[in-house]
Amino acid sequence: MSSPQSSSLAYAVRADFFRPSPVRAVFDISMREGMISLAGGNPDLGVLPLAELGEVAARLIAEQGLEVLQYGAGAGMAPLREAVCDVMRTAGIDAVADDILITSGSQMGLELVTSLLCDPGDVVLAEAPTYVGAIGTFQGLEAQIVHVPCDDDGLIPAELERTIAEVRAQGRTIKMLYTIPNFNNPSGITLHPDRRPVVAEICARAGIAVVEDDPYGLLDFWDAPLQAIRSFDDSVVYLGSMSKIFSPGIRIGWVLAPRDVRDRLQLAAEATTICPSVLSQHLANTYLRDFDWRGYMNRAIDQYHERAQRLDAALAAHLPASVRWTAPHGGFFVWLTLPAGLSAEQLLPLAIEEGVVFVPGTAFFGDGTGDDNLRLSFSLESPDRIEEGVRRLARVIAAQLDA
Amino acid sequence: MSSPQSSSLAYAVRADFFRPSPVRAVFDISMREGMISLAGGNPDLGVLPLAELGEVAARLIAEQGLEVLQYGAGAGMAPLREAVCDVMRTAGIDAVADDILITSGSQMGLELVTSLLCDPGDVVLAEAPTYVGAIGTFQGLEAQIVHVPCDDDGLIPAELERTIAEVRAQGRTIKMLYTIPNFNNPSGITLHPDRRPVVAEICARAGIAVVEDDPYGLLDFWDAPLQAIRSFDDSVVYLGSMSKIFSPGIRIGWVLAPRDVRDRLQLAAEATTICPSVLSQHLANTYLRDFDWRGYMNRAIDQYHERAQRLDAALAAHLPASVRWTAPHGGFFVWLTLPAGLSAEQLLPLAIEEGVVFVPGTAFFGDGTGDDNLRLSFSLESPDRIEEGVRRLARVIAAQLDA
Repeated sequence: MSSPQSSSLAYAVRADFFRPSPVRAVFDISMREGMISLAGGNPDLGVLPLAELGEVAARLIAEQGLEVLQYGAGAGMAPLREAVCDVMRTAGIDAVADDILITSGSQMGLELVTSLLCDPGDVVLAEAPTYVGAIGTFQGLEAQIVHVPCDDDGLIPAELERTIAEVRAQGRTIKMLYTIPNFNNPSGITLHPDRRPVVAEICARAGIAVVEDDPYGLLDFWDAPLQAIRSFDDSVVYLGSMSKIFSPGIRIGWVLAPRDVRDRLQLAAEATTICPSVLSQHLANTYLRDFDWRGYMNRAIDQYHERAQRLDAALAAHLPASVRWTAPHGGFFVWLTLPAGLSAEQLLPLAIEEGVVFVPGTAFFGDGTGDDNLRLSFSLESPDRIEEGVRRLARVIAAQLDA
Repeated sequence: MSSPQSSSLAYAVRADFFRPSPVRAVFDISMREGMISLAGGNPDLGVLPLAELGEVAARLIAEQGLEVLQYGAGAGMAPLREAVCDVMRTAGIDAVADDILITSGSQMGLELVTSLLCDPGDVVLAEAPTYVGAIGTFQGLEAQIVHVPCDDDGLIPAELERTIAEVRAQGRTIKMLYTIPNFNNPSGITLHPDRRPVVAEICARAGIAVVEDDPYGLLDFWDAPLQAIRSFDDSVVYLGSMSKIFSPGIRIGWVLAPRDVRDRLQLAAEATTICPSVLSQHLANTYLRDFDWRGYMNRAIDQYHERAQRLDAALAAHLPASVRWTAPHGGFFVWLTLPAGLSAEQLLPLAIEEGVVFVPGTAFFGDGTGDDNLRLSFSLESPDRIEEGVRRLARVIAAQLDA
């Protein structure tokens, strides 16, 4: 006999803030036969040397199994903490292993940081739009999200200052700015280099923590590494991830933070998962040290670039002139804006019927707006399928405009 | 330049409740040359077929790498959810895959359940003593721990009823009973089979959730499987773990809960880690399906049993008659009670000087008591080293009694 469908348990107040992710909701639909998915955020793992990685795992378990299958240190293994410091050097970040906490994916880092900083009702500032998983974390911890207007160069410093003043005038407490400065998920937009020290300075002056989430920074089509906000201000909390430069399935990310913050995060992490998967950490460490990982990544980036160009060209060829979209030079996503009167949430079931799936823009705002936006991903489908997906989407949009 | 030692960030109220684990604190000391550790809770992985497990990992990555290195389902993979249902059948539990949420270790399951049920100030009932990691989780979520008195047969039902009435008379809200019925960590005590349906019934009548944490249930020296509390009441939330029957380093546990609780836990889990390590899940699934895992476990249990007997005999041979201890028939731990006037926390530095380390009893109470107790682990050291560890401990206790 299976479990009862419902219990009579009395939930905590915060239980009502656990919301289903709209991205997860279209996950099953993406798997349907014949469906073209412009919805997911999965990296293309086809560039990885799977046989060699398998041999590494075999050796780790056979020769060091008593260590890699055992409990590990709460902070994560020291060699991996050193290796991610090397990774961050590309973004102009100077850090040492003791500054790092390894986490079970960078989503967990964000959850820990938010939990450490935000009491219920506290305000988190975020780009408009922002990462759907971050919205889920903030809502689950009963923080309030206030969006800061952005343009094609990302967060607008004057708007950031205005928003801080406005929220404070309402008597509310702002604890942090959450930002994805590079190839933002979902907008694809990148914060202009000139704005980075300015954003850091505004927040430092206002006593607001900057939490810089940077899973896509190295996926740069122009091969012109962007300097992290953290490179201008070492009080910034920086979230890194192995998910887009290696594997999301091993669940390894990291947090770089001032020592007192990092130490407290470690206590919270130990109360959540005791330690990150030790096997995953060893695999990530070997990948970063013994493999030409930047070579594999460059091949993946070439593919993402080709797909992004094909998506851009297809959108230009097939969509009406009243539709606008961003032109990212990295990452996974294009952000599309519909002409007035159209609704992304109404388009979605029609698009699915036509054989293409996307994520409606409302997923990426904490305030219910965004229904005139779509997030389109170019990370995983082939260029031809991307073009065909856009044709299908164009038919649905055209029909709606005619209706 | 590394990160600054301290930040000027304004923490959340809950930040003060993240406390260092006393078990983690003695971890580094345990590693010292010549030190005998009766402190840890690590399983002995020497019984595992490491070369074969390595080959499994190699095949998984080489042949299914695009799946096992990619994002996975938030609930965990279906075959593993089925496999853990088979594991639970030994404890009399009848459940199906849809009732299960796979987590990044069972500590995470406890964190999620507590977060779903407990508002700040709510009361969690727990055995006296209880698992140090659970105390950390409860304190981090600002829940209040009230201990229920136990005897050699575990939780005393009449004391459970009395405690519920007493706490409610104080106007406080009790949300859950947290219990480790089998070979309790740290006490080694097992809840008597006759008491199990009674405990379930008392809590059901009082509208209090039972959270049954069962990492050690299968590590039974008598080979007489104990029926889980969950087998008597399907509203019980049951926490399972791969850590003691396979590997803690892969960080895989599970929660079995009524469907509405399970579904909400999944949303919270996705906001924390997106999904558990997919590689770890595949490895655990193959281990449970294709390996004689009960055979390996039986060899481990024989070793634990021999070590427990040696520990018991050594304590009887070397300690003064005024010291008492439990005689577990499973699990990893013996709970020792010092004669009046001695302090475990004062003994610890002297014991470390003598070359043996343990965890003082205060770690296992939420109210500062327990300084006349020590937790001794027999899971990892050889019988001879256990005996030598007890000799060292006996010298320190004797010196303190003479002082």
